[in-house]
Amino acid sequence: MKPLSIHFGERIRKLRKDRGLSQDGFADLCGFDRTYISGIERGRRNPSLLAIEALAKALSVTVAELLDG
Amino acid sequence: MKPLSIHFGERIRKLRKDRGLSQDGFADLCGFDRTYISGIERGRRNPSLLAIEALAKALSVTVAELLDG
Repeated sequence: MKPLSIHFGERIRKLRKDRGLSQDGFADLCGFDRTYISGIERGRRNPSLLAIEALAKALSVTVAELLDG
Repeated sequence: MKPLSIHFGERIRKLRKDRGLSQDGFADLCGFDRTYISGIERGRRNPSLLAIEALAKALSVTVAELLDG
């Protein structure tokens, strides 16, 4: 099984691209730096619950939906 | 709406008690300190994705299920 951080990063990337957002545009929506988004999408970061919540809000999904994909 | 950290803490506490686990017993299952579990249950901590995964495993639920309650 894929490590959760990798799986989570792929999920974020997919949802971001589905919405036609660049990493820069998505980072602005979340209030994060683009390099942080890039690190998350590559599974190199271990985002906190509150960071996951900000990502979910910017993607218009619930936290559970974000983690269910 | 309740802050997510409060909601998450209440969810953890409910599932832990449903399983008849003390904070100590649950902390041992997760590999965390009891004070960390206590902080999470009171919404004072902001657990990382990997910590959330460890909590979910110890409760025999998926991460999505843990965040969906």
